[in-house]
This record gives sequence, C-alpha cells and structure tokens, in this order.
Amino acid sequence: MTTIAPAPVVDALRAVLPADRVVDDPDVLASYAHDDAEWAPWELPAAVVRPLDAAQCQAVVRACLEHRVPVVPRGAGTGLSGGANATAGSVVVSVEQMTRIHEIDPAERLAVVEPGIVNDDLRAECAKQGLWYPPDPASSPWSTIGGNVATNAGGMCCVKYGVTRDYVLGVQVVNGLGELVRLGRRTAKGVAGLDLAGLMVGSEGTLGLITEITVKLRPARAPEQTVAGYFANLVDAGRAVASITASGLTPSALELVDRTCLEAVDAWKNLGISAEADVLLLGRADAPGAAGEAEADEMIRHFDAAGATFSARATDAEEADALFAARRLAYPALERLGPVLTEDVCVPRAAVPEMLARIQAIGEANRVTIANIAHAGDGNLHPLLVTPVGDEPARERAQTAFHRIIADAIDLGGTVTGEHGVGLLKRDGLVAEQSPENLAMQRAVKAALDPHGILNPGKVL
Amino acid sequence: MTTIAPAPVVDALRAVLPADRVVDDPDVLASYAHDDAEWAPWELPAAVVRPLDAAQCQAVVRACLEHRVPVVPRGAGTGLSGGANATAGSVVVSVEQMTRIHEIDPAERLAVVEPGIVNDDLRAECAKQGLWYPPDPASSPWSTIGGNVATNAGGMCCVKYGVTRDYVLGVQVVNGLGELVRLGRRTAKGVAGLDLAGLMVGSEGTLGLITEITVKLRPARAPEQTVAGYFANLVDAGRAVASITASGLTPSALELVDRTCLEAVDAWKNLGISAEADVLLLGRADAPGAAGEAEADEMIRHFDAAGATFSARATDAEEADALFAARRLAYPALERLGPVLTEDVCVPRAAVPEMLARIQAIGEANRVTIANIAHAGDGNLHPLLVTPVGDEPARERAQTAFHRIIADAIDLGGTVTGEHGVGLLKRDGLVAEQSPENLAMQRAVKAALDPHGILNPGKVL
Repeated sequence: MTTIAPAPVVDALRAVLPADRVVDDPDVLASYAHDDAEWAPWELPAAVVRPLDAAQCQAVVRACLEHRVPVVPRGAGTGLSGGANATAGSVVVSVEQMTRIHEIDPAERLAVVEPGIVNDDLRAECAKQGLWYPPDPASSPWSTIGGNVATNAGGMCCVKYGVTRDYVLGVQVVNGLGELVRLGRRTAKGVAGLDLAGLMVGSEGTLGLITEITVKLRPARAPEQTVAGYFANLVDAGRAVASITASGLTPSALELVDRTCLEAVDAWKNLGISAEADVLLLGRADAPGAAGEAEADEMIRHFDAAGATFSARATDAEEADALFAARRLAYPALERLGPVLTEDVCVPRAAVPEMLARIQAIGEANRVTIANIAHAGDGNLHPLLVTPVGDEPARERAQTAFHRIIADAIDLGGTVTGEHGVGLLKRDGLVAEQSPENLAMQRAVKAALDPHGILNPGKVL
Repeated sequence: MTTIAPAPVVDALRAVLPADRVVDDPDVLASYAHDDAEWAPWELPAAVVRPLDAAQCQAVVRACLEHRVPVVPRGAGTGLSGGANATAGSVVVSVEQMTRIHEIDPAERLAVVEPGIVNDDLRAECAKQGLWYPPDPASSPWSTIGGNVATNAGGMCCVKYGVTRDYVLGVQVVNGLGELVRLGRRTAKGVAGLDLAGLMVGSEGTLGLITEITVKLRPARAPEQTVAGYFANLVDAGRAVASITASGLTPSALELVDRTCLEAVDAWKNLGISAEADVLLLGRADAPGAAGEAEADEMIRHFDAAGATFSARATDAEEADALFAARRLAYPALERLGPVLTEDVCVPRAAVPEMLARIQAIGEANRVTIANIAHAGDGNLHPLLVTPVGDEPARERAQTAFHRIIADAIDLGGTVTGEHGVGLLKRDGLVAEQSPENLAMQRAVKAALDPHGILNPGKVL
C-alpha cells in the first residue's frame, strides 16, 4: 500500500454529489479496496463513491476524467480475479445501492435493472411472475448483476442454458468520455450496428461503467431432478461425462467433486464419501414431468455403464440437497485449512480427465493441496489451491503451481479463464493464451473507447 | 456506375495469387457487383478474387492495403441490405470456393469450417453425426456461413434457439492491418479478454475478412410438430401470439402470414386461404415425443381461445408441408407481381399488431402493395414492398413507404433491422435509431480496427 493520493478529485466529487455519497474514511476505503481474489495486489483508493442513479455515475466519471483519476467499478466485491481491486488514488464506484428493478415484462420476457441488484434478488422477483433469469454463479446470493455482466459470469446451469452474455440485450454505460450511452436493444432480435452491448459484457469495467442492464428472461422451468454417482477414479468419471455428452443428453448441471474435496468435507462433516469414492459426479435434469425423470434415469445409466460404484436419483428436494452436500460444503471445508485461491481454467470436455491428472501431479510436485470442483459438462475446472495461514514458502510453491496449471490448460487447447475473468490474476495467462495481434486489437479497442485511460486501467490488458 | 478504376491493384493481386483466382472480365465483375437488395446502389469493382484459403485471403487484403483499395467481402451474395455491394474500383473477395469443413467434433459439440460453406450443407454434414447447427435463415439453401456470421443471420427457429451470434465460438479473420488473427475460443466457456469474436459477428465485413469459423452445435432434435391457425383479423392473431408467449410455451417457430401474402399466393396457386382467413399463424413445436404433441395441442388451444376461425395440427410431414405452403410460396408469389424489397424491422412482441396495422396504413397512403411475413414470436417483421416493373413513380412512393416503416418501428421501441443487417439500405435508419454517442463509439471501434478504412467502407456506419 502507498499513501493516500492528494484529494483534489475528492473535492470535485463532493462538489457534484450529495455529501453522504462520497467516502474517504481510511477504514471504509480499506474495506472497498479489493475483491475476493487471494494474492491479487491492491492499494487504497482516494475515495469510494456510492451513486444512487445513472446521473450520479456520470458525474463521478466526469470528475475522474477531469482529474485523470482511474475509475474502479465495483458490484458486491465477490470477484475472484482482482478485477475490482483499487489502485492508489483511484475512485472506487460501488453500485451496491443501485438496486432498482425498473421493469419486468412477461410479454417481452425481459427485465430492466440497475447494476447493484443481487443476482438471487432478481431471480426471486422474476419467479413471482413465472419467469426465470438463468445465470447462476455460485456467488448468486451476494453478487450483483452488474458484476455478473462485467465478468460474463457463468454458473452451474450454463451447461444447458448459457452464460450471462446470452441474456444481455442491452446496457446503459458511462463511457470513457463521460457520456451516458444506451447500447443494444429491447427487442428479441436486432443487428443494427456493431454489437457494443455484447462487447461490454465481460470487459471487466475497462470500457464503461454499467448503469443499467436489460436482460432476456425465460419462462419458469420445471423442478430439477438430481442424480449422483461415485467413481473409483477420474478416468471412469470422465468416461461418464463424455458418454452423456455424446448421447445427446443435455443435463441442466453436471458437476464433479474430486477426492481432495471429498476428504476435506469428510474431515469436517464426516459424510463418509471419501471412503467410497475417488470422484463424485452430480447431475441435474429439468425436462418437464416424466421426461425429466427419464433424463435423470438415463444419466444414472451412463454413470453405471462407465463404472460407477454407487449411483442414486433423489426422490425429493431433501434427498437432492443431501446428494449435493459435498459440492456445497467443499469450499467452506477447504477454507478451514487456510486461504483458498480459486483457479478457473476451461479445457475441451474430452481433456477434463487429463487436466485433472495434471493438476494432481502439479499439486504433488509443488507440495500444495489442490482440490477440484468442476463444471464437468462444460470442461470448466476450479482447482482450489489451499495454503496454511502465514506459510510464505507454501504460498510461493502455490504460485508456481497456479502458473503451471494455466500453462497446462493452454497446452490442452483450453483458456485461462472460463467464467471468473482476467482481472489482475490472469493478465500473464491472457498474454500466453492469445496472439500478440489479437491483444493489439483489444488494446486498440480499449484506447478507442477510453482514450484517456481512466476506466479500470491495469486490469485485463 | 462509373468507369472501372485503373488497375494497379489488379496487377498486385495477380502477383500474389494464382492467375485463375483474379478476375477482371467486366461481365463477371457485374455479376459479383451486388447482393439481393433491391434499390441499393452498387458500382463495378476493379476485380473479383476467389481465394482458396486463409493465406490467399491475407494476400488479397495486404495488396488492397498497400494500394488503399476497399475490400468487399462476399459469401453467396444473398444479402438483403447491400452489405456486399461493390464500390467503384474496389476488390470483391468472394469466399464461395472456401467450402471445407475442417472438423466436426461430437465430443466437443463444435465444427470448424471455412466461410464459403453453404448453411444447408453444414447442417447436412452435422446431421450425419447426430448434431444440429440451428441458425436457419430463409436463404439457407444458398447462403454461406461466412455471410450468416457477417450479418448475424436469424431465421425461423431463433424464437427458441437464438441467432447466429449464439453459435459462434471463434473466428479467424484478416484484420485491417492485413494480419491473420484467431479470435475467440474452442472451449464451451471462456472470458479471456474482450469479446472480439462476438464483435465480428454482425459487423458486415467492416472489421475483418472472415477466413474460418468455429461454431457450437446442439444434439439433433426430435422431429417438429406443425400447427396452423386462421384468423379474421390482426388483433385476434396478435392475441394468440401474446397468449402463447405469456403461457411459458416456447414454440420452435411461430410465423405470421398476412392477407396480402395470402391473396398473392391464392392468385397464383388457388389454395383458397384468403377467402377464409385474414391472417395465418403457423407454429412448430419440437419437444421430444408426447411432450411435442402436447405443445402443439396447447398452441392450437391458444389459437382457438384467441378466436381462430380454423385450426389444425399436421399428422405427418406431408400435411405439415401443406400447412406451411402459404409461408413458403409467399415470396415467389409476390415476385410474380414485380421486384420485391424485403424490409426487416423488429418491434417488441406486444407491438406486432400495431406495427402491422401501421404498415397497412402506410401501404394504402402511398399506394404501394405491402405484404407481410413475420417471425411473430420474435416481433421480427418482413414487410415485402412490391412495385410494378419500370414504374418509377411507384418506386418513389415505395421508398417513401420504406422510410415511414423504419420510422414507425423506431417509434414503437423497435429496431430498423432484426436479422438482415444495415448494409447500405439501413444506414439512415441506424442514425435515426441510435444516439450520436453510440454511433461515435462504433466509429471509434471501426477506426481502431481498420485504421486505413479498407474493410467494406461505406457500409453500416
């Protein structure tokens, strides 16, 4: 951390915003200075502002533009790549209080919302009208739609229903010139001009400060069926996933939990799974009525044919919850052991067993505990690197392992980030993954839309 | 038309390409000088080149870059907005002979193809492996995937399955600096860097010449059920569409054919529908087995409840084809009356009856025959403006009507183009629809990625 920057921008912010919208108390600044990414650098911002509407957002960006001070957009701060981490003297714009739902329109199947609304809150309001907003990142009880859009968040159901990008029709942003601009559309289809709304999705605050989002909705779906399978090794589990995909079945979730997770859960809750299984696969199916039960049974058949040592279909919600317990408890079980760095690589589906084997070898070679949760149906793996608190050599070994995992994901034809974003943690990985020409095109777009370099500079590119 | 530009670029092209790849015979040039858009201006290019691979595409763009000559990318030339129309002295790059399928991978559910492959040909190859490429523009027997990607083509099934954008994972392009660049990914998920692959989709050749496309595939689906409903007026038909949407039912097609179309079809084929119906609604459902039949029956119930004077569900493929005959024959039936200008506005679903009423009034006020086919489930309308051959005053009245329709679509919260693109015909409409700040951002992106302005200049922006 450096010292707090001199305060002319703070005075400028106070001149254009109500006094209670601008905070420069150091304790508060510290609590807004970073997201949930372990090991990503951060420094104290000059101020945190909490705008209440788009006009206030615009006033903030204009003040920052005038003083050439970086704007760091922030939703709930649940990001896992450091994308919302402050730089010294920057202005963190927390949209957490912009939580209004402007409309939910069942006839058009869309909602128009402010960026600060929490994912689960929007889903609950949609459900009241028989509608469904599918993207379901694990952070959905806390993370905001604005943050979800900025990172193009995924989740468990995207194996069937796609990611945030697939649900964004339009956005309103404050751009790099301090203009409030509406991009995209409200209609079901539309190809008028370049797809700048799409470009904003996943741009991690580097191209605009999002002030409003129009999302596409689906009709509410049938209740899900849940299945579980225990496997003696990764190869069998991988074969089950491949055979489900090849059969034309599309589960509404297909999750993998590895031995290290199962052991951590057992050490905490004594579910006894790790004695029976090396790998746990969890599936969901949501076709309506008998079709959903048939899909669940078919998944069980694929589990068994691939050599599952145990398989079961839940008959009610309580049983489903019990089957998903190991998945749900994996993260807190690991956190008991020390700080957890959540990795997020995505590889071709067929490469999942090979990637998991490599991750295990990397963990052993570097003496780092690495557990794995994976959206197996998508090839999206979350290796979870755990190090004991305060053990600096272990932390250095873990960082070596982290970079090795990224290199191996690229080697297998994968990407360095499936759904968490580049932020600060994956900047080197991005350079390793993409060609210099591709990166130069991205920098050219960034420079074109943010000519003064005030929008979350230093992130992604 | 102006005279052909001097030929230094032609010599330069001949220096880097096999002789048979470069054509400057005026008769051939004329046949490649424009797409299927009525009334869009075009001029003779200096040359047509027909590259066989990405390296030849790159050589063309480099030669054009050196001579500062516009590159006009072209697929099959089935576009309806003039996006592939040549300017005087430009070089038309026809990718029609780049038709290879590099791979179809059932395990990853993706295909990697060259841009010149025809949509239906790709679909047929995918079907052989139990896979499905959904986007189904009406031009699918002739149009290329490259053209589909460049215009972000839609079709009938997108009411349930989305548009071309939703199936593009990655592209390889020659960019404005003459570099061959791979954008996007092969994995199911990925958020590494700005979404430039997505930005290329629908950019109509203004940001890059597409040389390869990686598309997402779905498992083959169940055969569709087909239903038809006759309605005495637009209000009843509109109510049926709204009630289907509100019920949570998602048809795999929901098409509307209006009285003017029905009369044109009857005048040609004497199907006798126009005596019984003012508006025809056609629906399809593709849930597997009994569920699909139930969805079809539910659509029929919505038709009847909204006041259909007749409704039917096809029991076999032949009957389904008969029910869809009026939709299939509408366009050729109208072409018998004169050149047809295909409009392509998209309005909120609830505004479809109002928009159709306004279109009818515009036709009457300007004494222009305007028939309507509509992707009613999406609010995407195709008013078809027909004028007698050689009737210049009628053509001027039709152009007035064309602009009036665009203005009314914007007035109802719609967009000037739902799936055909801006090209030349909708440039004024784009300016009317989008804010100056939005357009300036698009121009900034264009300038950043095509600094010398050689990629399809004058189109879209």
